[in-house]
Amino acid sequence: MANLPDQKPHVVIVGAGFAGIYAAKTLGRAPVRVTVVDRHNHHLFQPMLYQVATAALAPSDIASPIRSILRRNANIEVLLGEVVSIKPNERVVLIDDESSLHYDYLIVGIGALNTYFGHNDWAPWASGLKDIDDALEIKRRVLLAFERAEREPDSVKRQAHLTFVVVGGGPTGVEVAGALAEIRRYALLRDFRHIDPRDATVVLLEGGPRILPAYPESLSRKAKDTLRRLGVDVREQTMVTAIEPDAVHAAGWRIPTRTVVWAAGNTVSPLLASLGAERDRQGRVLVDQFCNPPGMPEVFILGDAAQFTQDGEILPGICPVAIQEGKYAARSIMATVRGKQRIPFRYFDKGQLAVIGRGRAVADIRRLHFGGFFAWLAWVFVHIFFLIGFRNRVIVMIEWAWSYLTYQRGARVITGEGRPRPEPRS
Amino acid sequence: MANLPDQKPHVVIVGAGFAGIYAAKTLGRAPVRVTVVDRHNHHLFQPMLYQVATAALAPSDIASPIRSILRRNANIEVLLGEVVSIKPNERVVLIDDESSLHYDYLIVGIGALNTYFGHNDWAPWASGLKDIDDALEIKRRVLLAFERAEREPDSVKRQAHLTFVVVGGGPTGVEVAGALAEIRRYALLRDFRHIDPRDATVVLLEGGPRILPAYPESLSRKAKDTLRRLGVDVREQTMVTAIEPDAVHAAGWRIPTRTVVWAAGNTVSPLLASLGAERDRQGRVLVDQFCNPPGMPEVFILGDAAQFTQDGEILPGICPVAIQEGKYAARSIMATVRGKQRIPFRYFDKGQLAVIGRGRAVADIRRLHFGGFFAWLAWVFVHIFFLIGFRNRVIVMIEWAWSYLTYQRGARVITGEGRPRPEPRS
Repeated sequence: MANLPDQKPHVVIVGAGFAGIYAAKTLGRAPVRVTVVDRHNHHLFQPMLYQVATAALAPSDIASPIRSILRRNANIEVLLGEVVSIKPNERVVLIDDESSLHYDYLIVGIGALNTYFGHNDWAPWASGLKDIDDALEIKRRVLLAFERAEREPDSVKRQAHLTFVVVGGGPTGVEVAGALAEIRRYALLRDFRHIDPRDATVVLLEGGPRILPAYPESLSRKAKDTLRRLGVDVREQTMVTAIEPDAVHAAGWRIPTRTVVWAAGNTVSPLLASLGAERDRQGRVLVDQFCNPPGMPEVFILGDAAQFTQDGEILPGICPVAIQEGKYAARSIMATVRGKQRIPFRYFDKGQLAVIGRGRAVADIRRLHFGGFFAWLAWVFVHIFFLIGFRNRVIVMIEWAWSYLTYQRGARVITGEGRPRPEPRS
Repeated sequence: MANLPDQKPHVVIVGAGFAGIYAAKTLGRAPVRVTVVDRHNHHLFQPMLYQVATAALAPSDIASPIRSILRRNANIEVLLGEVVSIKPNERVVLIDDESSLHYDYLIVGIGALNTYFGHNDWAPWASGLKDIDDALEIKRRVLLAFERAEREPDSVKRQAHLTFVVVGGGPTGVEVAGALAEIRRYALLRDFRHIDPRDATVVLLEGGPRILPAYPESLSRKAKDTLRRLGVDVREQTMVTAIEPDAVHAAGWRIPTRTVVWAAGNTVSPLLASLGAERDRQGRVLVDQFCNPPGMPEVFILGDAAQFTQDGEILPGICPVAIQEGKYAARSIMATVRGKQRIPFRYFDKGQLAVIGRGRAVADIRRLHFGGFFAWLAWVFVHIFFLIGFRNRVIVMIEWAWSYLTYQRGARVITGEGRPRPEPRS
């Protein structure tokens, strides 16, 4: 009568991002009970979120219900809810509906949130890009900006509608800026009668000395050249000092605009404070070589929520890190359950890719640094390969083929009321 | 020097539904200037809206930007805005941003709105299905209902979450009820651990003596049988008397539910009151055999916004009527511009189709009344043929093929905050 179902150890996974989903999948046939808690009903393929924001794909193309992904694993339960507190001494997490879950092992992969570096008053005018609602909001604002410009008789105000500012020169900022440049040049070309969408200005602001700072310097230069050829105004060493309803101030410039995309700062949910472990300035929990906060071997903090140091460098907040950590945490738990020793985590770097536009990308794969069409092809294949769920793969392939052949964007439908955005004084 | 561009007659089209789009397309090469005004940026393929509400399709699959549809017609301008008033004596329409448009000819095809028969307090609990935001709201509520049931320990409350009430037995109500029955039986089958989605109850309430009242009686019976085989509880002659946060009252019944879809009553926007023409109880403008309100030959009221009587019967509010009237109005204007006589409008009835579920529909095509798989095939082909825009056709075909083969629903992603819905007293 050993191992009654409820005597199996209980693993609670908070967050169904890449770390959480891969951990759950790996535990899918292990002798444990698993509960996955997420405040959304879907897992999001975040690397393609900018494609929703720029009207190339529909939300359901890059998101799958968590229940579907884990349907075949009878030992896994999925719970729609938000974890509001962790009590490590009692081994309990509290959920927003005031229920609680006891865990034997806890895996936390809750990703990152936007931070405005203390300027939360900028948030209404500078939308971040972390989830589907963010992406739909950006899409709404971009498409409405063209509509408003078409109706605006005053040329100064018209140009403000046609100016898009992207703050932050990391992969997300580069992808969004490139995609906006392409919409403007191709997709909307013959749609308007009073404006020429090619008159739209896309400005990419980076506070540091170069865009794509995590890439080799040669690729940063290549990405900048490519963006400039697409007509993006790339400004490095340009720190934003203020965002107003109708302008961005940066390095002495005043840029009149109504549409700002914020891809600059990450922080981690205050939930982690309840753990009581040491955290860095971005709010990430300092973990040891086993992905545990010191002294808590039953708690794993993964992905963007953790600060993991390997060979003296902090691992970056990218998907491959989260995926490998998710699998690692699951295997560590299985080792402990079976009475075996855990081995330390080691990240295997397969390289990184950033896309800039149609047929344009940069690749940093081990010793190979290259850009252009082949980097883009590599990006397409890697991303489609990883897109979870067969349906999505087929649809995304067709959407891409179609948009590649015709320069059109299929998902150009404005929906929703939009978030409240204070009107600028005029 | 005749016919300078701005001397051409100006046609203003209010509403880019079927009537408006077909009128615009027909005027696309005529010697007139055309302005299409709509408060959405997209034309919606309304007959498939229920597929968005039931998570089978994404919004962009059934909507195309109006600008794209009319891009090739250089004489047509598209304006995103809401017409708030018509001044027929001055031949002017007023737009929500306080600008105005002068017209020589006016075409109004603004469709219908939901009415709750004087019970507007029911609206927060009984969402209508008129536009994409409505459809996304219904989808959100249905998917969340299953999530809440999964977490609800109390069996009475759980069953209330799993009860879906559809009010109104017209084509929309039948389609929604059938699709909900199928989600429950197939799509969600293995997703949950604590509930069996097959326990969900779908109730279809019709106030009149039979569902699909516009169809021959034999098809109403066939549709009812088919719905019952799908497990829908069909109740005819059951008038709703009250909708509360946690129950629907109808014909003495109290049905505990948290999810109500309203497909019962149509009315027309109060905008038409500003025209000063005679209107019926539903707010529709009484038009003559030329689709004009009496004494206003330059104004055409089309589709659901008009009451047009042919052979003693009022034309129904369905797509084919709107499409034929749209083309007719455009041709009448062209005739007048060319100094020719207008001929009266005559609706050519090609038949009607209502879908009930996977492989199930009813068809009323001239003398032919039939149901089952062939009616469904007819529905599929007619609807895909009419879906505007090549891209949509391909994607919709694949989504359907996929969902037909696997019983899955691709668009099951919950987004948005949801509309405010008062919490029930508990």
